[in-house]
Amino acid sequence: MLTLSIDTSTLTCSVAVTDEEKLLGQQVINTKSTHSQKLLPCIHSLLENLNITLKDIDLIGVAKGPGSFTGLRIGMATAKGLAFGLNIPIVGICSLKALAYSSNVFENLVVPIFNARRNQVYGAIYSYEQDLYTEKLAPQSIKLEELLDKILYLEKKAVFLGDYLESFDSQIQNELGEKGFYVLPQNLTPRASSVGFLAYNYFKDKGEDNISNLNVEYLRLAEAQRKLLASKS
Amino acid sequence: MLTLSIDTSTLTCSVAVTDEEKLLGQQVINTKSTHSQKLLPCIHSLLENLNITLKDIDLIGVAKGPGSFTGLRIGMATAKGLAFGLNIPIVGICSLKALAYSSNVFENLVVPIFNARRNQVYGAIYSYEQDLYTEKLAPQSIKLEELLDKILYLEKKAVFLGDYLESFDSQIQNELGEKGFYVLPQNLTPRASSVGFLAYNYFKDKGEDNISNLNVEYLRLAEAQRKLLASKS
Repeated sequence: MLTLSIDTSTLTCSVAVTDEEKLLGQQVINTKSTHSQKLLPCIHSLLENLNITLKDIDLIGVAKGPGSFTGLRIGMATAKGLAFGLNIPIVGICSLKALAYSSNVFENLVVPIFNARRNQVYGAIYSYEQDLYTEKLAPQSIKLEELLDKILYLEKKAVFLGDYLESFDSQIQNELGEKGFYVLPQNLTPRASSVGFLAYNYFKDKGEDNISNLNVEYLRLAEAQRKLLASKS
Repeated sequence: MLTLSIDTSTLTCSVAVTDEEKLLGQQVINTKSTHSQKLLPCIHSLLENLNITLKDIDLIGVAKGPGSFTGLRIGMATAKGLAFGLNIPIVGICSLKALAYSSNVFENLVVPIFNARRNQVYGAIYSYEQDLYTEKLAPQSIKLEELLDKILYLEKKAVFLGDYLESFDSQIQNELGEKGFYVLPQNLTPRASSVGFLAYNYFKDKGEDNISNLNVEYLRLAEAQRKLLASKS
């Protein structure tokens, strides 16, 4: 059973093909061009290099958020289009959870974060227990200082990963000192294979998502919605 | 400064483009077709998706072994051809060291192994100390039981990664029990970006390798050489 997975929750565009237990192919493109420019060529060339076609795919996995609003919309729309067009099941996976699963961090806390702007991050805290990354803090839009406080409270070292973390570096170092560090640069950004394996395991245990109800999970209001609500209040 | 890196030391074909500190793009193709079929299309489509050409590349990084003899020869020949043709520097990096750097394992021993057949593995033991993976056992062709004995002697948990480890699983579990485990499947196999960052850092500190002298490091005799020597003795 082949899963085609898509992660466009950050600037990084990643697609992968996995079977039940192996990564067969993966491509990551981490440039500033838009996902609408990057995603389809990525899928096309990956399948071509794997010598398979879309007809060989049995399941679509997609990172459903949180993350870049535009990136997520493009990823979700493409994933739904593929699942609908090919008449195959689709499963959406939390982007932060998928990033934790790509981390390989077993002994410390894993803290995937994306820049959520307006002085916030999308972040979560996981700990690897009995072969699973268990949520110590659920994915949410949160001020970095609050997230760091929660890490301090847990009294363990924390390994950070995510897209463009430079802007948080001094704050993390100030608050956590030697208790906070980063994965190596080749491992910082999302890789779709984690979405793929999580989607496959979810599908095996619980079945597919309802394609009509599956939606991007922004975890907060879009800028336009926020302004609309503010203007009404 | 852009580094194009190639890792063909196992069945997995991987190419990446990195700059001084970021992964810009990476492709991994883990199918049984030959590297001569996979490598050039991988490079071609990765550069195309990154919207750059070979003329933009400043440095070639290549995994120089140990690993699959044929895979390494194809990777090295292609890398040298590119460096020579583009008149840019080349740096060769130990495949097992590169795999350790892709692991993200900070607290335990990291043990990258490839199947070396004839009842042996190519293996090494690393420990992450002061921002570097330090060799606890140098890369070598070794019987798995000897490698496991050395791990037991070091009295720490060991995290294994590599290509097609299924055949070693029962032996690892028997010898190490809970002290031996694996990275998740999406992180098992080589990713060229580790070669890329190691090559760039080597180049910055020590300069380029001599393209004429740079050679594959098999760490043991090829089957044909072994038979020739045996027939003479």
